[in-house]
Amino acid sequence: MSKVSIEDQLTSTLLQQTFLDGEVLDIEEYKKSVVSYVEIEQCVAVLSDFQADCSYIYAGNFGEFFGLSSENLIIDSAFEDCIFNKINSDDVTERHALELQYIQFLKNLPGEEYRKYSTFSRLRTSDSQNVNYINHRTMYLKKSSNGSIWLALCLYSPSGNLQTSTGIDGRIVNMQTGETIASEKYKSLSETLLSKRELEILKLAAKGNNSGQIAGFLNISVYTVRRHRQNIIQKMQVSNTTEALRTALVMGLIQV
Amino acid sequence: MSKVSIEDQLTSTLLQQTFLDGEVLDIEEYKKSVVSYVEIEQCVAVLSDFQADCSYIYAGNFGEFFGLSSENLIIDSAFEDCIFNKINSDDVTERHALELQYIQFLKNLPGEEYRKYSTFSRLRTSDSQNVNYINHRTMYLKKSSNGSIWLALCLYSPSGNLQTSTGIDGRIVNMQTGETIASEKYKSLSETLLSKRELEILKLAAKGNNSGQIAGFLNISVYTVRRHRQNIIQKMQVSNTTEALRTALVMGLIQV
Repeated sequence: MSKVSIEDQLTSTLLQQTFLDGEVLDIEEYKKSVVSYVEIEQCVAVLSDFQADCSYIYAGNFGEFFGLSSENLIIDSAFEDCIFNKINSDDVTERHALELQYIQFLKNLPGEEYRKYSTFSRLRTSDSQNVNYINHRTMYLKKSSNGSIWLALCLYSPSGNLQTSTGIDGRIVNMQTGETIASEKYKSLSETLLSKRELEILKLAAKGNNSGQIAGFLNISVYTVRRHRQNIIQKMQVSNTTEALRTALVMGLIQV
Repeated sequence: MSKVSIEDQLTSTLLQQTFLDGEVLDIEEYKKSVVSYVEIEQCVAVLSDFQADCSYIYAGNFGEFFGLSSENLIIDSAFEDCIFNKINSDDVTERHALELQYIQFLKNLPGEEYRKYSTFSRLRTSDSQNVNYINHRTMYLKKSSNGSIWLALCLYSPSGNLQTSTGIDGRIVNMQTGETIASEKYKSLSETLLSKRELEILKLAAKGNNSGQIAGFLNISVYTVRRHRQNIIQKMQVSNTTEALRTALVMGLIQV
C-alpha cells in the first residue's frame, strides 16, 4: 500500500525531476528581478530552486505579518515551511493540490507558454482567533530544456477581501487575458491521488453510508470496502474517514 | 466662474507641483525595477515622471490587449492617453477622481509611509460590445524632498472577475495589511470639486426636483438655483444636468 499525502506528492513531483548535466542557470538575474518586484509590490516573495532544493525569501513591508525581517533569507528547502506554518493547514493542503493541478496543466503547454500562467488562491492564517486572508500566487519562471520546472516564484500579499468563504478560491489564471483555467477544481488531482473505486467509495461514505451499505451498492465484500477505506486514509494522510471526508471536501474531490 | 473638470484638476494637481532646483532623480534605477516587474507580472506598466511630464510604458504579454508592442515606449506626457482611450470614459473619470482622493490622502502621511499604499480599481474597456475588465493600480514610487510627487507607477492587468458592477470599485489599499482606506468614496473630492451648496442642489435634483422646488426647499431664489446648476455643469465639464447627475453618481458624489 502506498502512503502518499498531497504534500509528499507535490514534493516528490518537483524534487524528483531530472536536470541535465552541464545546464547552468544564472539565478542571480532572477534574484535581482525578484528584489525589484518586492520593492515595488512590498509583498513576500519566495524564489524556489528545485534543482538545488533551496529557496530565497524576500520580504517587503508585508514580511512583518509573518515575522520576517526585511533581510533576505536563504532556506535549505524548496518549500517554505516557515511560511506554511503560519497558514491554516487545510488551506495549505488545498494550495498544494492546486499546485499539482497547475503542474499537470503546464505539462501540456508548448514552449514558453507556461510563463503566461499563474495560480491564484486566498489562504487563511493559522490563527483561528483573528483570521486574516492572504493572496497567494505561484508562477514558474524557468524550466530546464528537458521540461523540468527549475525556478518557481511564490507571492504572498494581503487580501483586502475579508468575506469568509469555504475553500481557497483556487484558480489557474492566464495573466495575459485574465481567463480562469480549469475551474473544475482539482479534477486531475482526484484522478491521480485516489483510484476511481476509492473515489466512488468516498462519495458513498460522504452520503452517510457505512461499509456494509457501500459493499451492497458496489456488489463487493465488506472486507474489500474496508481495505479501500484504509487505503484512502493512508493516501490522504489523515487519521480516520471523517478527516478524509473533510479533506476531500476542502480539496473539491467530493461535493455535499 | 472656474471651469475645472476632474481630468484638468488631476493634471494640474500633479503637473503644477514645484520641484527643487538641483534635486536630481536617478530614474534609471526605477526604470530597471519596472522592467523586472513587468517581466514577472506580464502586465502593462506606466512609469510617469511629473517633473519632466513624460511617461515610460512597458508592455508584457498583456500589452497585446492595448495594441502595444513589447518594445518599450516613451511618451511626451505624464498621462497615458493612448491607454485611457481604450477604457470606458466614465471609468477613466472615476479613476481620475480616485487618484485625486489618493493624493489628498497621501499628503497627510509622514515620511516614507506613502510607499505602503496603492489604489485599486477595476475598469471597463471602451468597446461596449465586448466589455473586458482591467485591474488598475497606481502607486507613487518617489517624492521630492519638498513632498511633491515625482514618480508614479500605473499597472494594468487583466481582471479574472467578470461580474458586472456599477462603478470601478475604487479603493486605497494598505499593501502591508490589506486594509482598505477611505471606503466612503471620493468624499474629499466632493468637498473640493463642488461646494457644499452645489452638492446639496445636485442631491435634490437627483431626487427629481426642478429648480423651483429646489429653491423652495433651500429658501433661495430660482435664479440662484439656476446659477448654481450652471456652475455644477461647468465644474464637472458636462453638457447638462442629466449628464452631471450621471457623472456624480459614477463618482459616488451622490447616491440614488
